[in-house]
Order: sequence, then C-alpha cells, then structure tokens
Amino acid sequence: MPTIRKINHLAVVVSDMEAALAFWRDALGIPLAEIRDVPAEAAQVAFLPLAEAEIELVLPTQEESGLAKYLAKRGPGMHHLCLEVDDLVGMLNQLKAKGIRLINEEPRRAADGKQYAFIHPESTHGVLVELYEMPASSE
Amino acid sequence: MPTIRKINHLAVVVSDMEAALAFWRDALGIPLAEIRDVPAEAAQVAFLPLAEAEIELVLPTQEESGLAKYLAKRGPGMHHLCLEVDDLVGMLNQLKAKGIRLINEEPRRAADGKQYAFIHPESTHGVLVELYEMPASSE
Repeated sequence: MPTIRKINHLAVVVSDMEAALAFWRDALGIPLAEIRDVPAEAAQVAFLPLAEAEIELVLPTQEESGLAKYLAKRGPGMHHLCLEVDDLVGMLNQLKAKGIRLINEEPRRAADGKQYAFIHPESTHGVLVELYEMPASSE
Repeated sequence: MPTIRKINHLAVVVSDMEAALAFWRDALGIPLAEIRDVPAEAAQVAFLPLAEAEIELVLPTQEESGLAKYLAKRGPGMHHLCLEVDDLVGMLNQLKAKGIRLINEEPRRAADGKQYAFIHPESTHGVLVELYEMPASSE
C-alpha cells in the first residue's frame, strides 16, 4: 500500500515577495534558506524550512500562468498542500481506482529527480494537493 | 528570541465530514485518529496525524460562527496554518513590536492547557496563522 509520510510543504502564493518576507522571515523569525527562480513554474520561490515541513512563498513571474490567474482571482493566501508519498505511481493508481480526479494522471519529474503530481481540488473538497515522491538518494 | 519550531497542523474547513473523509482517509489512506466535537469552536474536528504535523478537518456546527461564515463565503478548503512556538507571549510581543495585527493580543488557553493566539490575515498576506505553545508536560 502506498503510504503518505508527512507534509512536505505548504505553498503560499504572494503578490509582493519582500512584503511577505517581512512577515514570515522578519516578524515570525523563520530563517530564509533560499530564494530561487523556478522558470518551469513561472515563479520565484522563497524556501523557509522548519523542522520537518517547510513554508514556500511563491510569486508568479508570468501573467498567463495558472498561478498568476489564481492570485488575480483569489488574492494572496494558501495555495497548495504538498504531501510526501513513498510510491507515487501506486498512490495515483489507488486514487484513480477510487474515482479521484487527478490533474496529472502520470508523475511529472522535476529537475532534481523528484516526481510529483497534483490532485484536482474538485475531489479534495477545495484543497489543491500535490504529492511528492523524493528521489532515492535523499531518503 | 521566541522560535517557531514546526508546523503543528493544517486545518481544512469542510461542509460534509463523511465526503471529506472519503478523500483524506479512504483515498489517501491517512489514518483517522479521532473525530471530536469541540463546542468551544462550534465545530466537529477530525484529526489525521502524520509524522510530525497533522491534517484537521473542521466542520462548523453553528450557523453563526466565524468558521461557518467563512465556509459560506469561500467554500470548503484550507482554513488556517498552525505553527508551534516555544514562547507564545514573547512571540506576540515581537509581532506587536513589528506592527503585525493580531486577532488575539493575549494568549488564549484551551481545555488541555495549550495556549494559542491567531494572527490577522491582513498582516500575513492572506493566511490565517495560529500559534500554539504546547503545555510543558508534552514537551
């Protein structure tokens, strides 16, 4: 049975990275590990790791992206929840068998070898859920 | 310096507990620890613990509560992010000194001894953030 291990991160969509960091980094005091441009997602991402899971601040960098449209429609706020799973293909098959609507029917692969897929919020009661399977070397 | 330790939980507001559990428990396979009525919050809460942080499904049980109004206005979805802090009073003072707007200026105490306070989403760029200080016995 594929097993959900833990929350990997919570992604927050922001409209102004410095203003958002003034809260998360400066007021709460969560250390900022890195700010990185992620062209594949048309976004700039700030990584704020905590003990186990991290906060990610995600700033859209292209007007036409899904993320930019989400921000325009709903304003800044929580965007998606990422859960780590030990067997992504197994989990996607399990979800399909239960009639869950997927955004990515097959795993996608990030530059660092991580595999991921999104579940449609229609089937999660309003939460955009991402599933990660970490590359073997990081386990 | 007060320090944020970790994500304690992510709360998801739901309109139908069984339908929500069909996804989180049955499709994803996250074990359900408990469903409990929390009259103080006018809600029924399902607790789904993961390795470090848990998912909480929160169903409003009174039409007039803030939670019920949130659900009516925005529909089901992510509601708030809870972070654990080692010194809640110190953190609230730090936030006030930085001009952050708080919903609870002073810690509130739950039945189990846990102290908590909410930060206003106006100062967090759209995320309702709760801070927990766990009772000493659980540390």
